[in-house]
Amino acid sequence: MQRIGNLQAVREKLQQIGASAIIIPTNDPHFGEYTQAHYKVREWLSGFDGSAGTLVVTLKGAALWTDSRYFVQAAAQLNGSGIRLMKMKMAGTPSIAEWILSQYPEGEVVAIDHALFSYSEYESLSRELAPCRVVLIDDPFDELWQGRPQLQFNPIIWLDKKYTGESSRSKHERITRALGLGGERFAYIVTMCDEVAWLCNIRGTDIEYNPLPQSYAIITNSAIHLFANLDSIPDDVKGHLLDDKIELHPYSSFSSVLAEFPASTVRVVSKSRITVRDYMALDTPGVRFFGDPVNGGIVNYYKSIKNNWEKEGFCKAFLADGVAWCKVLKYIDDSLAAGAELSEWEIGMKFAQLRGENEFYRGESFEPIVAFGPAGALPHYSASKDNSQIVGKNNFLLMDTGAHYLFGTTDTTRTIPVGELTPAQRRHYTLVLKGMIRLSMACFPKNTRGSQLDILARGPLFNDAAMYFHGTGHGIGHYLCVHEGPQSIRMEENPVTLEPGMVISNEPAVYMEGEYGIRTENVILVQEWKFNDMNDFYNFKTLTNVPVDLSCVDWELLDGEESAWIKEYNANVYKTLAPLLSEEEAQWMLKKYLG
Amino acid sequence: MQRIGNLQAVREKLQQIGASAIIIPTNDPHFGEYTQAHYKVREWLSGFDGSAGTLVVTLKGAALWTDSRYFVQAAAQLNGSGIRLMKMKMAGTPSIAEWILSQYPEGEVVAIDHALFSYSEYESLSRELAPCRVVLIDDPFDELWQGRPQLQFNPIIWLDKKYTGESSRSKHERITRALGLGGERFAYIVTMCDEVAWLCNIRGTDIEYNPLPQSYAIITNSAIHLFANLDSIPDDVKGHLLDDKIELHPYSSFSSVLAEFPASTVRVVSKSRITVRDYMALDTPGVRFFGDPVNGGIVNYYKSIKNNWEKEGFCKAFLADGVAWCKVLKYIDDSLAAGAELSEWEIGMKFAQLRGENEFYRGESFEPIVAFGPAGALPHYSASKDNSQIVGKNNFLLMDTGAHYLFGTTDTTRTIPVGELTPAQRRHYTLVLKGMIRLSMACFPKNTRGSQLDILARGPLFNDAAMYFHGTGHGIGHYLCVHEGPQSIRMEENPVTLEPGMVISNEPAVYMEGEYGIRTENVILVQEWKFNDMNDFYNFKTLTNVPVDLSCVDWELLDGEESAWIKEYNANVYKTLAPLLSEEEAQWMLKKYLG
Repeated sequence: MQRIGNLQAVREKLQQIGASAIIIPTNDPHFGEYTQAHYKVREWLSGFDGSAGTLVVTLKGAALWTDSRYFVQAAAQLNGSGIRLMKMKMAGTPSIAEWILSQYPEGEVVAIDHALFSYSEYESLSRELAPCRVVLIDDPFDELWQGRPQLQFNPIIWLDKKYTGESSRSKHERITRALGLGGERFAYIVTMCDEVAWLCNIRGTDIEYNPLPQSYAIITNSAIHLFANLDSIPDDVKGHLLDDKIELHPYSSFSSVLAEFPASTVRVVSKSRITVRDYMALDTPGVRFFGDPVNGGIVNYYKSIKNNWEKEGFCKAFLADGVAWCKVLKYIDDSLAAGAELSEWEIGMKFAQLRGENEFYRGESFEPIVAFGPAGALPHYSASKDNSQIVGKNNFLLMDTGAHYLFGTTDTTRTIPVGELTPAQRRHYTLVLKGMIRLSMACFPKNTRGSQLDILARGPLFNDAAMYFHGTGHGIGHYLCVHEGPQSIRMEENPVTLEPGMVISNEPAVYMEGEYGIRTENVILVQEWKFNDMNDFYNFKTLTNVPVDLSCVDWELLDGEESAWIKEYNANVYKTLAPLLSEEEAQWMLKKYLG
Repeated sequence: MQRIGNLQAVREKLQQIGASAIIIPTNDPHFGEYTQAHYKVREWLSGFDGSAGTLVVTLKGAALWTDSRYFVQAAAQLNGSGIRLMKMKMAGTPSIAEWILSQYPEGEVVAIDHALFSYSEYESLSRELAPCRVVLIDDPFDELWQGRPQLQFNPIIWLDKKYTGESSRSKHERITRALGLGGERFAYIVTMCDEVAWLCNIRGTDIEYNPLPQSYAIITNSAIHLFANLDSIPDDVKGHLLDDKIELHPYSSFSSVLAEFPASTVRVVSKSRITVRDYMALDTPGVRFFGDPVNGGIVNYYKSIKNNWEKEGFCKAFLADGVAWCKVLKYIDDSLAAGAELSEWEIGMKFAQLRGENEFYRGESFEPIVAFGPAGALPHYSASKDNSQIVGKNNFLLMDTGAHYLFGTTDTTRTIPVGELTPAQRRHYTLVLKGMIRLSMACFPKNTRGSQLDILARGPLFNDAAMYFHGTGHGIGHYLCVHEGPQSIRMEENPVTLEPGMVISNEPAVYMEGEYGIRTENVILVQEWKFNDMNDFYNFKTLTNVPVDLSCVDWELLDGEESAWIKEYNANVYKTLAPLLSEEEAQWMLKKYLG
């Protein structure tokens, strides 16, 4: 009932401003994966709390578009809300524009918040919605949403050069050079909070799972301008920033500073990563926009190529995380052996608790997935305290969790057998593992793209007429976002080539609906391997230090090299971790994984 | 001296027409791989007869651009011509436009033959050459080139429906439907001779190695218009064509017919596959151009997907060709055993001779490559009668040849060991074979692109820090061009997905400069494999029937499945071919390849 009242209030607001519809996306002005609670208007209005969805409210109705991951959840959560579920990419589902136009074929005013849509989204919406007119409005929800959370600005920390390996001053120089604009005055606009954090060597806790301050930056010829909550910057951090050629501005002044650049300053910005509001502030008469010369953006690209300090940090992070993982794995093993009831949620908590024993731990890098049996086949299953299964028997327990440490970010998935498995389960488990091993062992010449390597991970499943529908690998930030670009290993073409220093996940999987899910994920680092007359060749170094359960492997399905690789992997993990474990833990590990 | 005189005559011609430079490409108005001798102006003027090169003659000098395959050959052939060799893609080599502009920085007139450049080439040249002005001229060489070969028009044959499986009438209907222009009048322009041949179910012998008549076609709502030399069409063929909704026009009337379409007729044409002359004929005021809705063009795409009749024809072609190959392999084996001197050229002739024993043989599908030892590492080596090596000892003999049969086209490469090999040679041989096997065994879901599969063929070499710099697979026409699109298996992205019915080569290789070359090539057919809840999966059927020499395989490098696959392959080839061979040949084959 509350939701229906809220929708009614939205409609009244629409009538006040002369609009017939409003489109409410899942976004904030920074285009990141997570937003602060303040921006969760769609969730507040609809009750649907999945990570992706767009709500449209018109004077005549309301509908929510989401993708197949969320069809079941959204249907349940929208129940009784009066909001229609629109299943994206399903036959017969209208697009947002089609649905609005079906109600207003003659054209009406459609409102969007100019701080929540990128300029390119605005351009395509305007095209698709014609003859409707898209009008830009300020956020109208402060007065409608009782108890709306305020935007949070927590203390900003400075990340020492011993972790980042490069000063902002040096990053500024490299970026300026790469732009190739010579002496021309320019303003390179950085809206993504993780790019700002990398650029300024700062971190924060404003956004869930992403260790970032809510902030913007503008790079000019002479300095980096950081837009952040100035009260959240301790004096010593301010000192570091100023020392490093960074000028400080209030977060709220970003748009107005954009509007003040003289027309002669070249604007470097991606239309798809700047809000309509901010793009319009830049787009004054006679200005010149300059396309970022690097795929995915210079800052984003440089951020993806880890330097030696960052690489060392990743190794330390995967060492710390390996210790915690082993302790959790032993805890599960012991509990199940003792016949204890173990819930998915408890296991997730155990990860955080054991990781917390490391002084450099800075929180989980995403919502942990701990899923037993059929739940493992749900792509975004997440157990909560009140809604969590007990780990049962004769099926798989899938665990996908990661953490932030001051020196790096981790992301690991292990699927462990509980009880007896069927031959089909063992076969699938082995084929997923085989794909993970094949990609780990790959060698390739420079200029190779991720889409060329993807089949190494998928091929063993393809040969069994099975597959998974997500990417094989995503980039991982250095104590930054657990999902970052521009590189990827996917079936889809991505022109970004894999370069030494890039860190990427390797996570083939298989999902049998209603039965089980299996995913095995290591994180790998692109490194130089061999140079000769023919070419420069690269390969991968595996960073993850978590043993792989081999008790349910069907060894017939692995060739000699693959078998040797995974056995050596477990042996190396043991050698690496044993000195950091108790005698009992080390013995358990030796017996369980190298026995 | 002759060449210098000819260049001088070209310069006088330039002065007459008020130009300072002329660009002479390797092309004819149909943009195919081969041209008739009539169009080989570049070869006549420069003496360089490689398959790729562009000659530029200015009032001040002359230069020829070619790629790395031809650096050595071009340098030798240009010697004494006064023409400078421009090595493409090498540091310091100017582009054609840069070189012309370095001579005429103020801008002069640059002439191009409007029937030899595509409209998109013309557009980019005009841009790059500014402030020079590009003027379009008619072919000026008839009067300059004494004894210039006339354009040849040989008899056109009609290919029966038992070979093509589909009438032109049906192809016309499918294409019209795929265009999706509803009832609108359209003219779909077909300039590629192989597309015309497929469309009209005709073949010819006008062009070397390509079994094609020199011809154009225009598809309109009501008919296919064929532009060919009418005197070359026998009456019975004319009858078939008219029966099949095909209207006949003189070859020379193509441009004028284009110019006669009313402005209301929608033009469907690719700017990169129509001459400047013909594009301009179409581009009258108020007309609408419509982009071909299919990657690579509807006709090209439909042509690439073989129907059941064409697939059966390919099987028959590879059967006939397998017989000839086996006889050649035995002939080589016997000759070498007898200590006879065997030249590369003789072996090439032997292929044609033995293939000719089949009544459906219609000539070689490309210039045969028979190369012993270091010559195998030269990508376009070709032995001639007067310039051919004797097959020596302790190295590889690489043979890449193919043929046309009335029912299909073949393309096969085998590399055979002669004498003793080094471990490195055996290793390379095995890794190339391993790549060929891995690609042959691939299974993949629908919508897979060739670039995703490419690493299966290259991976074994990559893991040895070796590679080859050409594609892994090209499409093959059905008694049409041995190289056709739009599909490919390459490192480079190509958005065309592999569809059941596509025929493609599988030819990994390794080239050790100055030492040897190894290439093993089968032709494979994409076919449906398994359908299930997850997806539709495809795999390959191997069409080639030529045994693979296993005497120099390093079996350690193949896994169990790969070893089994290649042994079974040879066993199947034996079973298939033995009934068509003499008792002695069959026995030899059994002993040599299955022993």
